[in-house]
Amino acid sequence: MKLVIVVVQDQDSNKLLNALMEHNFRVTKLSSSGGFLKSGNTTFMIGTEDIRVDKALQIIRDNCKSRDQLVAPVSPMGGNADSFIPYPVEVEVGGATVFVIPVEQFHQF
Amino acid sequence: MKLVIVVVQDQDSNKLLNALMEHNFRVTKLSSSGGFLKSGNTTFMIGTEDIRVDKALQIIRDNCKSRDQLVAPVSPMGGNADSFIPYPVEVEVGGATVFVIPVEQFHQF
Amino acid sequence: MKLVIVVVQDQDSNKLLNALMEHNFRVTKLSSSGGFLKSGNTTFMIGTEDIRVDKALQIIRDNCKSRDQLVAPVSPMGGNADSFIPYPVEVEVGGATVFVIPVEQFHQF
Ligand code: NI
Ligand code: NI
Ligand code: NI
Repeated sequence: MKLVIVVVQDQDSNKLLNALMEHNFRVTKLSSSGGFLKSGNTTFMIGTEDIRVDKALQIIRDNCKSRDQLVAPVSPMGGNADSFIPYPVEVEVGGATVFVIPVEQFHQF
Repeated sequence: MKLVIVVVQDQDSNKLLNALMEHNFRVTKLSSSGGFLKSGNTTFMIGTEDIRVDKALQIIRDNCKSRDQLVAPVSPMGGNADSFIPYPVEVEVGGATVFVIPVEQFHQF
Repeated sequence: MKLVIVVVQDQDSNKLLNALMEHNFRVTKLSSSGGFLKSGNTTFMIGTEDIRVDKALQIIRDNCKSRDQLVAPVSPMGGNADSFIPYPVEVEVGGATVFVIPVEQFHQF
């Protein structure tokens, strides 16, 4: 048995939760926030048999991998028009930090 | 030293917390929610000496064991009376998922 | 790789978070509450290479160590003046509980 602890950005969290549940992983969601300037994040705890750890990692990678996204420019509202960027900008979104922790005993009562 | 991580249903969480504290366990409560259609849940982290792990498990089992509960029927309020069940229904409530994790170092500052 | 789990009082949590980030630790903050009559607390998860665990512990000790603090008396507002203490009182504040947990796999996607 392993405990997989995953921290992902909020925008990927529902997609990841659904994908994990579709594959019958048992998931608990903790409210969390990042220490960096990132947007809000979510921490999942997944309890799984050793043999299914790789599958969990694959699902996490598929749903949360860090990637570039085009963001539409925001038009200036009474702001400084000089700093307005009139074309989409590429920003990095997503990403997951994953810890696989050994479990000495697992019980369900 | 072990870290015992327990996920229980909200309805059992105060009872469990009180029972653990009565037996001098040190407990931290995290806000969490289940990945399944269950009602809200609570995650506890309990730091304990190896020798007291069995006692913690016994307290968790005694206070949170999955059991059947009779739920009084809700009378239909302008709803479809055809689907009204006029007798109590047995539903499964409670239950606890427990992970016992090894601790390499423990400090109190 | 280790996962360092730290529970501290809310009043020390920003100071600790800033100190950890200044030293380039990656930190996730979980909402938590204590099981005892303590004021609110915060749980941090810090993922770190083995070689930097001691540095993390030193930062935690420096910023959260349990210490005495003089608390100014609150003047009685329509309360019982007999119980008013007209001089500062020393109370213990701060403190940190720290668990260092082994990590079998660490991934960033
Ligand atoms: Ni699939
Ligand atoms: Ni007892
Ligand atoms: Ni320094």
